[in-house]
Amino acid sequence: MPQPDTPRLPPGRGRRPAHEVRSATLAAASDLLFSQGIRSITFEKVAARAGASKVTLYKWWPSPGALAFEAYFAAVEDTLAFSDTGDIRRDLTTQLHAFVDLLDRNGSVIAEIIGAAQTDPGLAAALSEQYIRPRRNLAVERLTIARAAGQIRHTADLEAIVDQLWGACYHRLLLPTEPLTIEFADALIANLFPGIAP
Amino acid sequence: MPQPDTPRLPPGRGRRPAHEVRSATLAAASDLLFSQGIRSITFEKVAARAGASKVTLYKWWPSPGALAFEAYFAAVEDTLAFSDTGDIRRDLTTQLHAFVDLLDRNGSVIAEIIGAAQTDPGLAAALSEQYIRPRRNLAVERLTIARAAGQIRHTADLEAIVDQLWGACYHRLLLPTEPLTIEFADALIANLFPGIAP
Repeated sequence: MPQPDTPRLPPGRGRRPAHEVRSATLAAASDLLFSQGIRSITFEKVAARAGASKVTLYKWWPSPGALAFEAYFAAVEDTLAFSDTGDIRRDLTTQLHAFVDLLDRNGSVIAEIIGAAQTDPGLAAALSEQYIRPRRNLAVERLTIARAAGQIRHTADLEAIVDQLWGACYHRLLLPTEPLTIEFADALIANLFPGIAP
Repeated sequence: MPQPDTPRLPPGRGRRPAHEVRSATLAAASDLLFSQGIRSITFEKVAARAGASKVTLYKWWPSPGALAFEAYFAAVEDTLAFSDTGDIRRDLTTQLHAFVDLLDRNGSVIAEIIGAAQTDPGLAAALSEQYIRPRRNLAVERLTIARAAGQIRHTADLEAIVDQLWGACYHRLLLPTEPLTIEFADALIANLFPGIAP
């Protein structure tokens, strides 16, 4: 009888420290995610690839989707900085271009993670707390500075701006009927900016 | 041995016409969808409820998700008319309020359908062709009339407006961190309108 839970330890080594097992697990999950999609992420398959115990994975992540999200997040965390050149229109444009580029390269994985979150409360919570909420806050902080500098009118709804720029891009990713391009990002800013400027 | 494929015909009746089987199937799928969510929709369960053959369902729908979507669409089709009072800001507001209200009542089912579409190409195609694309066209048609009437500036990107109003609402539905309310709908219009007006 196969025993998929038995850790496949490298020869000649004893029990590995938890942080090593954790990063091996995230690396294995990330490999699977980017090569075979979110449906390939099961605790059993990732545990086997990482030489980890399936029981450990169950202890660390509420669902395979949550593990997939953390693996994705660890892989892209550094790619989306929010610059402050003092010119809000320029900074929004730079950031939106980088975002569209990220969706262009990894869109199907992101779409699958957001899709899975709709029926996976553990993944939905991880996605919201670790990714969506912090990124929304960064954008609102930059917009608040711009408002204080007189570049955004005081009555503009800053949270809604996030939905009308980044949310509009997610809309084209998740309900694709029109292309998600740099030109689209520029059109979003051109439509919105005269409405939110003082 | 149980035979779940055998149609449970009402007593005293022979083979039913296809359109009757089809509407009984959609009604059964809609009942399951709204009471138990999209994960409850399997061809086997719906066929049993509708007294239909599972083989027939496989023939008519590419996936259980596509059946779920058609059942949903049949249930809400008439609720989202796009009025033309001659005042585009008023008509957009009326329509967005109705949309937010629909998401408020049926948001979790819609989110589940869009979520499932991310890994179900048959459902994604049905959703796009039968729902998203026609609704987008209706909005763009109304915006085109408004532009011809001088209520929207000629350089505004009409397709992007759809992403910045309805898409922004889908963003709050699918990646919920901020409330999806009538006030939010009004903020979307207040942010955008001065930017797209002449």
